[in-house]
Amino acid sequence: MESSVKPTVAIVGGTGALGIGLARRLSKAGYPVIVGSRKIEAAEAATLALREKVTTASGAPVVISAATNESAAAAADVVFVTVPFAAHTTTLEGIKSAVVGKVVVDVTVPLVPPKVARVQLPPEGSAGQIAQALLGEEVHVVSALQNVAAHHLDSDDDIDCDVLVTGNEKAARQTVIDMLADIGLTGYHACLINNAAAAEALTSLLININKQYKTYAGIRITGIDP
Amino acid sequence: MESSVKPTVAIVGGTGALGIGLARRLSKAGYPVIVGSRKIEAAEAATLALREKVTTASGAPVVISAATNESAAAAADVVFVTVPFAAHTTTLEGIKSAVVGKVVVDVTVPLVPPKVARVQLPPEGSAGQIAQALLGEEVHVVSALQNVAAHHLDSDDDIDCDVLVTGNEKAARQTVIDMLADIGLTGYHACLINNAAAAEALTSLLININKQYKTYAGIRITGIDP
Repeated sequence: MESSVKPTVAIVGGTGALGIGLARRLSKAGYPVIVGSRKIEAAEAATLALREKVTTASGAPVVISAATNESAAAAADVVFVTVPFAAHTTTLEGIKSAVVGKVVVDVTVPLVPPKVARVQLPPEGSAGQIAQALLGEEVHVVSALQNVAAHHLDSDDDIDCDVLVTGNEKAARQTVIDMLADIGLTGYHACLINNAAAAEALTSLLININKQYKTYAGIRITGIDP
Repeated sequence: MESSVKPTVAIVGGTGALGIGLARRLSKAGYPVIVGSRKIEAAEAATLALREKVTTASGAPVVISAATNESAAAAADVVFVTVPFAAHTTTLEGIKSAVVGKVVVDVTVPLVPPKVARVQLPPEGSAGQIAQALLGEEVHVVSALQNVAAHHLDSDDDIDCDVLVTGNEKAARQTVIDMLADIGLTGYHACLINNAAAAEALTSLLININKQYKTYAGIRITGIDP
């Protein structure tokens, strides 16, 4: 019954590649997952597809449900946001009242299509800072997972990538780092939400490298004794 | 006589820890190195200390000399700039006329003491962009090496860190990537100089990790087949 004590997770914008990959990994690790979307039909379709391919290691039942973004955020303990940057502000405004007092994990990368391989950070510094400013101090915003390819998340393979975790509250960062450990990823405390700029900018460089090497690149932090 | 065909390298601001580490690695690899400093006495002292500890693998003589920053830049084919961000603009202005047509490798990280573990990118986007704008289109600015600890460069050990290489000209980036290979480092093309922001921002996150783990952290790019 260990899975019953895990916090419920919402994936806001959960029908994109990254959201589906995260829902897959987290539900497999025993977290009850609510896939959110603007349209309930899209969330339900993604949920059905996920149930087909996810099994937990322990044999415990996989708990995945569908909801609109707002309902998903309201029903969850921890809320991941995986939307395109163009939808970032609108999405956050939509869930703002539902996430007061909660940990919100912003996975948004401020890519500006079509030149997604070019670093184009927003004037505010980063998507993470935008999220913290918009949601207010009562929301524990953590920025993470910008450098892990959706392709890798949506598989059962080990992921060769570390995660830089930023946010103004250490306890909230630690909550996320513990969840990452449950899905096989090592997260590193990387200080305040201002530092989200580094991980967000790095994504464009990895996109460059992906193009050159026809791969899905990631990063590892070196120099740490295991 | 292979070393005689290698380009001469200037290390502008070469008496700091990073500059000394680079001078050590490059001279060991057979590059003629000119250590530059504002004061010739400081450059000479650093040069003497380097000659004591550097030997080439081939047994060929180590070529290290001292000069003022401007003279070093004028006499070199490739010019590395390793100065604190506070001295960045002044230093570049001082060498501007000496580097026309040359590759200038900007290693500057826009840290703002005392909060060096906090990402504080300049309004221009990055030190690399500042350098390219200041030096002008006739100078081939490449940004690199922001994530390699000086501690590791100033040793004979293998370095467990990759290098993100940005710059507006691919040929100039390749020149630097080839030099990095000569000192045991893998460099990756990471597109235009705008993208220097990513590597520069990442340094502050590595400083955070260094503090937590009492180490000199670096990064590796993953997902690339060797």
